[in-house]
Amino acid sequence: MKIGLLGHGVVGRGVTEIIDGHFPQITVSSILVKDLSEGNDPRYTTDAYQILNDPRIDIVIECMGGIEPAFTYVKTALENGKHAVTSNKKMLSHHLKELTDTAEANHRSLRFEASCGGCIPWIHELERTQRIDEITSFRGIMNGTTNYILSDMTGSGADFNETLKEAQKLGYAEADPSDDIDGNDVAYKCCISAFSAFHKAVDPDDIPHFGIRHLKKSDIAYAKADGRVIKLIGRGCLNEEKLSVWVMPVMLRGDDPMCLVSSNLNRIELSCRTLGTASFGGQGAGSLPTAHAVVQDVLSIEDSGIPKTWETSDNHIETVRGTYYVSGRDLSLFEPVSAECHDGWVLTHEMSLQELSALMQNSHDVFVCEVSR
Amino acid sequence: MKIGLLGHGVVGRGVTEIIDGHFPQITVSSILVKDLSEGNDPRYTTDAYQILNDPRIDIVIECMGGIEPAFTYVKTALENGKHAVTSNKKMLSHHLKELTDTAEANHRSLRFEASCGGCIPWIHELERTQRIDEITSFRGIMNGTTNYILSDMTGSGADFNETLKEAQKLGYAEADPSDDIDGNDVAYKCCISAFSAFHKAVDPDDIPHFGIRHLKKSDIAYAKADGRVIKLIGRGCLNEEKLSVWVMPVMLRGDDPMCLVSSNLNRIELSCRTLGTASFGGQGAGSLPTAHAVVQDVLSIEDSGIPKTWETSDNHIETVRGTYYVSGRDLSLFEPVSAECHDGWVLTHEMSLQELSALMQNSHDVFVCEVSR
Repeated sequence: MKIGLLGHGVVGRGVTEIIDGHFPQITVSSILVKDLSEGNDPRYTTDAYQILNDPRIDIVIECMGGIEPAFTYVKTALENGKHAVTSNKKMLSHHLKELTDTAEANHRSLRFEASCGGCIPWIHELERTQRIDEITSFRGIMNGTTNYILSDMTGSGADFNETLKEAQKLGYAEADPSDDIDGNDVAYKCCISAFSAFHKAVDPDDIPHFGIRHLKKSDIAYAKADGRVIKLIGRGCLNEEKLSVWVMPVMLRGDDPMCLVSSNLNRIELSCRTLGTASFGGQGAGSLPTAHAVVQDVLSIEDSGIPKTWETSDNHIETVRGTYYVSGRDLSLFEPVSAECHDGWVLTHEMSLQELSALMQNSHDVFVCEVSR
Repeated sequence: MKIGLLGHGVVGRGVTEIIDGHFPQITVSSILVKDLSEGNDPRYTTDAYQILNDPRIDIVIECMGGIEPAFTYVKTALENGKHAVTSNKKMLSHHLKELTDTAEANHRSLRFEASCGGCIPWIHELERTQRIDEITSFRGIMNGTTNYILSDMTGSGADFNETLKEAQKLGYAEADPSDDIDGNDVAYKCCISAFSAFHKAVDPDDIPHFGIRHLKKSDIAYAKADGRVIKLIGRGCLNEEKLSVWVMPVMLRGDDPMCLVSSNLNRIELSCRTLGTASFGGQGAGSLPTAHAVVQDVLSIEDSGIPKTWETSDNHIETVRGTYYVSGRDLSLFEPVSAECHDGWVLTHEMSLQELSALMQNSHDVFVCEVSR
């Protein structure tokens, strides 16, 4: 079995390390790089179509990141009769339906375990569960960077910027951490999870998502005083064909198992009609965990050929209602909808995410967090 | 695909309910019962060999329980060229190596997902992880009855017998709860897990195991005062080919994620060489969760034919050392090995499980619990 690899950054290098070292029956025969000076591997090429048009290549693995040209390359690979494996959550969340349709039309596999939850077998278990049961909802801590920041602030009482700097020093946060701390990364993963769980395509730009950029020490202290812990939670549910997908910080009750997910770890739960809730935890990011998930996909293609395909459809996002804790300097916009107003924070009445989003658009430097029931 | 089902109790009825209702391509064609008066299903038979010798049957599912005749029936099924699926942990823990060898010799599948962790895909993930990584240890809350009792005593401050009665009323504990509360059930599951994780066969009678029969309110209070929670933990690890497997109550630190496993739920973790720890949680017992796991095995056989077999070997159990909290009326035997003696309880020095087992054999009505580091 011959592999063409697109991209040789952190994940791509992990993939070649694992395959070269442990799987003699699988050969990485070409690697697309931006510049041949990236290393002296004889497999390097700067011409993507040398890989995409090579009839000897069975599987194309994409670990380039970014929407284009990654999307075009993966689509072309499928059209050219190759299986495709990708870890690229941003690209997938925008184009999963089109790529799934292309894979199906060409009788090829498209696999993307590495795009959500690192080495947690999340997509695999969503698929496996559906062999028997119907998934009704999922929720999870799906971003290591923000969970590290939240865990550290809760433990040490440090402030946000201090903790972010520490996370960057440890390699848990990127130089530009916006995608993580603003909730975009989790929004991408929730789109992909909703597609796998409910077979409904949804655009990440349509998902209400809130991050932790404006979180303050005093917010953590407020939660603590009430025996609660703040975590950034991505969620999706399907009620009578109505889909809801959203991302936001939640003040969890202290006895919620999510509270004890420490450091940069992830934990995701699925709930289904007859079996209740199943949970999966582990390392949600990093070179080796992500590369392992990519190689698991390659082995699944090697083992079992083409997995069953689903019918998919486009969907609208349903309204979700909740009670929200909002803190910041200027909360005047929130006072009319508040059950409780205090100096520096308010608790809203039960309100919809759409109403909340509208208020947030006109508010600055405000931190918002759901208060779980 | 035709199924012969041995046993039609709680699990067997769940299996026919799922297969009859949802899988037209699979037919349960015969069902072994003790007595035809159990129901008026035309598939009932009291002759096991009518199933085991029927060449039209592809898979035999065993949900009878007990070591014999279950073992003989499963072995005969494999020898007669049928795949076998069983949920029978007691039988498996005594005969897994022999049955695996028989399956391999006959090029048939032996699957036993339902024997550990109910609908948690535990055996499946042990196998899947090993496609790439090496498992070094596992630990888990693997028994719903004792976790219900421990959670309830911790929450309510009730005493053991009161809580056990309540668990029996709710169907979480059997009329004779010995196998659960004395740790035998977890010992069986640890044997099966060790076999799947390390490919080493070990007799359940050789595994040190301690239960919660003599747990008192005051033990729970002691743990609580120290910010700890008592859980019954089964564990296994492999260090340089040396195997350790054991079962005992552990006073976990309050920030251990095991502490928040509530009611009768289960949670099991595996650790591996390159990927760290992965955790899996869900319903660990009950009719439908167990039946789902059985049907997942049937679907895996239908999908993928025969999974890869392992080389196995017999093994000795390695020594494990720890610090133990021991409580009860007569602790005189423990005083010489104690770092701290109090009225009603002692804390031991670091000691081996073998030493502890020897002392326990001569002690009566004593509760013992590891104090985690």
